[in-house]
Amino acid sequence: MADDLKIFSGGSNLNLAMEICKHIGIPLSAMKVSRFSNDNLFVQIKESVREDDVFVVQSLTTPVSDHLMELMLTLDALRSASAKRITAVIPYYSYARSDKKDAPRISIAARLVADLLKTAGADRVLTMDLHADAVHGFFSIPVDHLTAMPTICDYFAALLDLSKVVVVATDAGGAKRAGRFAQRLDTSLAIIDKRRISDSNVEQGLVVGNVKGLDAIIFDDEISTGGTLVSTVETLERAGAAKVYVGATHPVLCGRAVENLSQMFISEIVVTNTVHIPSKKRFSQLKTLSVAPLFARAVKHIHTGESVSALF
Amino acid sequence: MADDLKIFSGGSNLNLAMEICKHIGIPLSAMKVSRFSNDNLFVQIKESVREDDVFVVQSLTTPVSDHLMELMLTLDALRSASAKRITAVIPYYSYARSDKKDAPRISIAARLVADLLKTAGADRVLTMDLHADAVHGFFSIPVDHLTAMPTICDYFAALLDLSKVVVVATDAGGAKRAGRFAQRLDTSLAIIDKRRISDSNVEQGLVVGNVKGLDAIIFDDEISTGGTLVSTVETLERAGAAKVYVGATHPVLCGRAVENLSQMFISEIVVTNTVHIPSKKRFSQLKTLSVAPLFARAVKHIHTGESVSALF
Amino acid sequence: MADDLKIFSGGSNLNLAMEICKHIGIPLSAMKVSRFSNDNLFVQIKESVREDDVFVVQSLTTPVSDHLMELMLTLDALRSASAKRITAVIPYYSYARSDKKDAPRISIAARLVADLLKTAGADRVLTMDLHADAVHGFFSIPVDHLTAMPTICDYFAALLDLSKVVVVATDAGGAKRAGRFAQRLDTSLAIIDKRRISDSNVEQGLVVGNVKGLDAIIFDDEISTGGTLVSTVETLERAGAAKVYVGATHPVLCGRAVENLSQMFISEIVVTNTVHIPSKKRFSQLKTLSVAPLFARAVKHIHTGESVSALF
Amino acid sequence: MADDLKIFSGGSNLNLAMEICKHIGIPLSAMKVSRFSNDNLFVQIKESVREDDVFVVQSLTTPVSDHLMELMLTLDALRSASAKRITAVIPYYSYARSDKKDAPRISIAARLVADLLKTAGADRVLTMDLHADAVHGFFSIPVDHLTAMPTICDYFAALLDLSKVVVVATDAGGAKRAGRFAQRLDTSLAIIDKRRISDSNVEQGLVVGNVKGLDAIIFDDEISTGGTLVSTVETLERAGAAKVYVGATHPVLCGRAVENLSQMFISEIVVTNTVHIPSKKRFSQLKTLSVAPLFARAVKHIHTGESVSALF
Amino acid sequence: MADDLKIFSGGSNLNLAMEICKHIGIPLSAMKVSRFSNDNLFVQIKESVREDDVFVVQSLTTPVSDHLMELMLTLDALRSASAKRITAVIPYYSYARSDKKDAPRISIAARLVADLLKTAGADRVLTMDLHADAVHGFFSIPVDHLTAMPTICDYFAALLDLSKVVVVATDAGGAKRAGRFAQRLDTSLAIIDKRRISDSNVEQGLVVGNVKGLDAIIFDDEISTGGTLVSTVETLERAGAAKVYVGATHPVLCGRAVENLSQMFISEIVVTNTVHIPSKKRFSQLKTLSVAPLFARAVKHIHTGESVSALF
Amino acid sequence: MADDLKIFSGGSNLNLAMEICKHIGIPLSAMKVSRFSNDNLFVQIKESVREDDVFVVQSLTTPVSDHLMELMLTLDALRSASAKRITAVIPYYSYARSDKKDAPRISIAARLVADLLKTAGADRVLTMDLHADAVHGFFSIPVDHLTAMPTICDYFAALLDLSKVVVVATDAGGAKRAGRFAQRLDTSLAIIDKRRISDSNVEQGLVVGNVKGLDAIIFDDEISTGGTLVSTVETLERAGAAKVYVGATHPVLCGRAVENLSQMFISEIVVTNTVHIPSKKRFSQLKTLSVAPLFARAVKHIHTGESVSALF
Repeated sequence: MADDLKIFSGGSNLNLAMEICKHIGIPLSAMKVSRFSNDNLFVQIKESVREDDVFVVQSLTTPVSDHLMELMLTLDALRSASAKRITAVIPYYSYARSDKKDAPRISIAARLVADLLKTAGADRVLTMDLHADAVHGFFSIPVDHLTAMPTICDYFAALLDLSKVVVVATDAGGAKRAGRFAQRLDTSLAIIDKRRISDSNVEQGLVVGNVKGLDAIIFDDEISTGGTLVSTVETLERAGAAKVYVGATHPVLCGRAVENLSQMFISEIVVTNTVHIPSKKRFSQLKTLSVAPLFARAVKHIHTGESVSALF
Repeated sequence: MADDLKIFSGGSNLNLAMEICKHIGIPLSAMKVSRFSNDNLFVQIKESVREDDVFVVQSLTTPVSDHLMELMLTLDALRSASAKRITAVIPYYSYARSDKKDAPRISIAARLVADLLKTAGADRVLTMDLHADAVHGFFSIPVDHLTAMPTICDYFAALLDLSKVVVVATDAGGAKRAGRFAQRLDTSLAIIDKRRISDSNVEQGLVVGNVKGLDAIIFDDEISTGGTLVSTVETLERAGAAKVYVGATHPVLCGRAVENLSQMFISEIVVTNTVHIPSKKRFSQLKTLSVAPLFARAVKHIHTGESVSALF
Repeated sequence: MADDLKIFSGGSNLNLAMEICKHIGIPLSAMKVSRFSNDNLFVQIKESVREDDVFVVQSLTTPVSDHLMELMLTLDALRSASAKRITAVIPYYSYARSDKKDAPRISIAARLVADLLKTAGADRVLTMDLHADAVHGFFSIPVDHLTAMPTICDYFAALLDLSKVVVVATDAGGAKRAGRFAQRLDTSLAIIDKRRISDSNVEQGLVVGNVKGLDAIIFDDEISTGGTLVSTVETLERAGAAKVYVGATHPVLCGRAVENLSQMFISEIVVTNTVHIPSKKRFSQLKTLSVAPLFARAVKHIHTGESVSALF
Repeated sequence: MADDLKIFSGGSNLNLAMEICKHIGIPLSAMKVSRFSNDNLFVQIKESVREDDVFVVQSLTTPVSDHLMELMLTLDALRSASAKRITAVIPYYSYARSDKKDAPRISIAARLVADLLKTAGADRVLTMDLHADAVHGFFSIPVDHLTAMPTICDYFAALLDLSKVVVVATDAGGAKRAGRFAQRLDTSLAIIDKRRISDSNVEQGLVVGNVKGLDAIIFDDEISTGGTLVSTVETLERAGAAKVYVGATHPVLCGRAVENLSQMFISEIVVTNTVHIPSKKRFSQLKTLSVAPLFARAVKHIHTGESVSALF
Repeated sequence: MADDLKIFSGGSNLNLAMEICKHIGIPLSAMKVSRFSNDNLFVQIKESVREDDVFVVQSLTTPVSDHLMELMLTLDALRSASAKRITAVIPYYSYARSDKKDAPRISIAARLVADLLKTAGADRVLTMDLHADAVHGFFSIPVDHLTAMPTICDYFAALLDLSKVVVVATDAGGAKRAGRFAQRLDTSLAIIDKRRISDSNVEQGLVVGNVKGLDAIIFDDEISTGGTLVSTVETLERAGAAKVYVGATHPVLCGRAVENLSQMFISEIVVTNTVHIPSKKRFSQLKTLSVAPLFARAVKHIHTGESVSALF
Repeated sequence: MADDLKIFSGGSNLNLAMEICKHIGIPLSAMKVSRFSNDNLFVQIKESVREDDVFVVQSLTTPVSDHLMELMLTLDALRSASAKRITAVIPYYSYARSDKKDAPRISIAARLVADLLKTAGADRVLTMDLHADAVHGFFSIPVDHLTAMPTICDYFAALLDLSKVVVVATDAGGAKRAGRFAQRLDTSLAIIDKRRISDSNVEQGLVVGNVKGLDAIIFDDEISTGGTLVSTVETLERAGAAKVYVGATHPVLCGRAVENLSQMFISEIVVTNTVHIPSKKRFSQLKTLSVAPLFARAVKHIHTGESVSALF
């Protein structure tokens, strides 16, 4: 039987997919996505995948519904084309943020999408830095969950004098993640304690812990509109932080994120390429580290049956 | 236990949902759809549905992926909010057109979407004029499959002298549907025999059957870009048809459909409101018949346990 | 692990199974079907299939219920005997005709049987010329759907002067299939427009299109009692067809089919061996083309992981 | 909602179904079974069952495959016709005999058929005297398992002087069942110890226990060809039994059963009507007790939610 | 049909179950748990539950495996006894702590147990204060997730001068929960920043935030061995906290918890009765609030179909 | 891909697992079982199993619930660690005794546990001498069902003069198993006919068949408390048996089994090591035969895809 390793890419992050292929040393396999006049999406796999070990790279970025549907049509087409095993490679799984029922009668969408992906034909998932660790457990298929934290840590460790650094969580919910980062860098920790006054108002945050005269690294999983970051930076500035850095895995950068962040008191914003950043969204403080080597090694290990946990 | 009848509506066709509610005599129930900054959709049901018999109206119209995702999030939210039974009311199930594997390595998306809807929480489906009858069998949950054909037939029967009418299928694939229509009106049948010369070229169609001097009713399930209609009308004109009418259930009317059709040699285009037609897309020859009374009766019968097949 | 290719055959079409084996160059594997005194069927696989790639050939021909049950018992026995993969090879899937709900409260049996086969242990299906393309989508397991159309086309292309040929569909429902056949042979198309007057009466058909002086090839997927064929031939004769040929994949030939057809004005009836034709049912106009080479190639490709779509 | 109790009957035992209906006081509901010319079965439910509580009576008797397929098509039609709950009433579940893997590479058909019935749409099963108690556990849906043992016991208790009775099992495998019968009648127990010499030869049985001068009641779950009974009766005769009686739930009576048994040294054979006995198969020693009252009570209790175990 | 509300209790917390019943005004239903000599557990439901709405109360407390198995056997027995709906009421779902993969090749046991409960027959779950909110999403059946936080908050609000209170999280992972508690009481927040030096050593924690002269309420979801509490109290004492209080939902109190905590500098430890506390484990500072009224209301609302979210 | 054969062992029978490994010639793979302070079990697989063919040895012995939970956590951890195939090797499946519904409203626990094991991740099961053959059919995954009967038979055949031997079943329910044993040894058969007088009283048994002056081998599947054995031995003694031997596969030996049996009139008790016997439970008459060679061969055959049935 065939059992060749093949990598396909949806439309969300072609650059990353190609970079992964390059690291592995295989060409990106061909598929075609089109749209019927009634707005139905249509996917065709352009080469035989019978009995092959297939990976599909797709981040759930804007337009999320189309990218998800594209991914599911691809998975279903691969399955009915008799692929031996199909791994959905989802560098940024945006629905991970909908991981709990914090309001009545809502969907825990991170679980729903996990179930939909299985229904569509995914045998495995390979992803990175899910918003909450527990989202891993929403999948009933095996998940390999990579992290960019060491990559980002190493970058900051080379850049800064860690004895003068404090890691900052933007709110209590992020304290756990920031705490792990602080522990890895062996720095102290601070947390912004924000309170919701009403549905529309959040009062100014208080710094829990000491940041005065220190270089603060705000650490989070993703940067979306940057609104929280902006207020955090202001709070840190007021509290006397020497410099402010930001580290985050997923550069969603939506809304007025670029306008806002590029003008803030931030020395450097370090992100990865799990989300494609078009050139018009790049700005001077933004530093992008590539996770393609890490994904490439994970794909190879999954294919050959070597340990993936050994990669961390 | 509660067991109230409640109807919710996604954003695709609010008018139809409200019209259905009005015929039943209940208010439309409240739900909220919003979009996070990272483009994730978010649905919240705004009233208790515990142990209720709930219907969600949503046509799979542009933007199809968003409307489908919105529907699935609603189904999941209703399920986890302990609705007793959830019926997805999908007046226009656009993916029904992807009902077979006519190219290698594609998804039979009509089946995939049927499975996704079940995964998301649908207990039943209520729909209308699926592109192919067999699509009914793609669902593993019960389906009530309504048809607007009698409604459209009755309209033409009142309008025209049927002894001078020929029903026309736009191609061999539509012959079965047009044949049923012709039989119901007791008129003769003609078919346009089109051949695909290459991927991009379809040669001019030939009329199989006689249309000369007759009023032709082109009958189809949906009007999309209207491209096929335009060439069919031209063929019929050349073949000497007296007048040309069009009957179709779903007025998708995408691309340049309105521009093209409004200038053709067509006396009247009779459609229904399964797909919402914004006012800017309305034009003089377009006649819309409402299927709300039929859906309202079906919903009531499903709720009370009366026969739905008795509605035809 | 083993992974040997093994082919078993139910009792419906042993000749075809043996012919497929011969083309592949392996012996037919041994199994035993018997019947207990209480009429329960009993199947025993007579050789180890552990970790093997197993194919079971069975057409759903008379007695259909027994042949289906025999197939399901075989699939279950193979599964619990630890076969690595089990492909149900069903050259004639008779229940494909029950593909829609054209009457209230009936089973879409083509879907039911698809689900039963999966429950019984089928991992894949290999079949030919399903009554409707959409039946493919009734299976939740991968299906390879072969067609005998090229084989039958090639035969007629060699036999007839195609410039004098018209392809005829026996009713509007068959127009699509006949249209594809006509396109492949590059001939014109005609359709018999039949109307159902009452439950028991179908009025004489009208020819839609031109057949006068032409050689007509009636093309259909199966020949059952031949009743429709007989009336179609009569209609064509009256309409002045020069000669009449028939092409169909599945020679079910039940009831008085042989008596009726052998005496009609038909030059040749071209079928395949998906359904076993006992010698007493053979008659002079009947020409049988073997699909064994095609099935053999498909089985080999499935086994080795080569593209099956490349076979068409 | 409706929630009416409706009973349908397949073709295997119409008499029993009607008798059950009579005891409940409702008419038998209408359904139609027919057969297409290609031998496919076709079932249509002739009245609305939407939201009803539906029972289908069908014994798996000759022709078993047709009766099973008929049952499954009925279940599927009822499900897609939106019945609220569907109970398969299977008075004689013949495949229960295939309850273990006593040869390599066979199907445990009693489990397979249980799974098929669930796939086809059964929500519950109501059955009687399964060949082995453990077969109950093959179903993943709730089963109510009735027994005719008290009915048969009561009959013998009224007929015979129990102080002179010994209950006899026809082989070691039946000792458990016969033991329970003996305990209920408070008689002694004997067992025929038969040995299989080769595949085709079973040596004459030995009586384990004492039967001399006693009235022997051979107790079993079903009478099939009667072959075992014949040899058991001969053994008992040789061992000096005074009289021989037979008690069994299911009168399958196939092959030469009637010829053989009617000429044996048997005073009376007491069976029930779980299997329909055509008049030509009745003979003087055969006494049939009706289980219709028991099934009627069970159906009513299931419908109203009263305890079924209280019936025993 | 019946549809009575019935409540059963496993052996883990009979007191709570009886208290819930008392609030609802129904008797506790009877079931028997025993143990075979081979250590297999055996459960028998002692009254009819056919078509009833059944709740089973069982906390996953020591011995956890037995209590879980007992619960699963009960669920399965209820299902096969035809209960209409079965809700597993699990006041303390201990496996919620295994909610992520923080080491290679471990089970996310909170997800596994959720799946096992569904397999065993649970239709719904009613639980309280899961270790992480996301664990809700591990269940594929509807979950009503109660919280004791308002109960505990109200208690402290009545007891203390909140202007002098700081809420303390025992580590960064608990910051989110403690933050919500602080927000509800409108107090400030502090966090103990602990670092793991090696597998066996955790260095002394640092207080992030200000506690000097304040009454500290350490807030957590459960108290297990109390080891973390002890070191947190010591840290707070050193940091100058005026008094120390503890609030937690689940009083697991295992190991030397009672010995340790009763001798610490803690003014009061406020817990609930989700976990049964035997009298020998009670000590003076321990205050138990009953959650029975809350569970009783939730059970009633689930039974009658009223909103449960309205309870918060 | 890897596809290495790896064997893990739960805590129930480490000796047997190591002996199996030794026969195969591979080391036992490393896993760690621990227990959190809240009594939750925790399993970690200590080496990569990605794409490996993994077997887990665990008998369901005291403490059964813990051993089962341990097994399920191991299966789940292996699955999510991407093992290629996972076989649960369960030498003693104690829940097999709960194989039927012999009282109202109980669980058929043997079926429930079978379903739980599948949910937890088992792809296959390898087991030995299930209490009833039909339990095999409770599994929806493939089962290889070994038997120690030939091993025990061979031992007795070498030990005794079979012409003076009678095989004895301890009750009617065991007659079938004992009958097979008797047939294999070619000896006569006797059965103890015991009656249950009330729930707590079983009257003294009667010997059905002849044992006077013969060496009796009581044959059963397991020895639990030995209570039945003790009364059977007493009955045989009274009935004049020369010597009494016992053969059984599973030495559960719980309660006062050792005390009771070691003092009885029993020449030898022959068991296997499916259940671990601690040294303090060994006594002079107890003879243990190892089934490790048989399990080792079965594991190898499963791994390499050779016939397992050929082992018998």
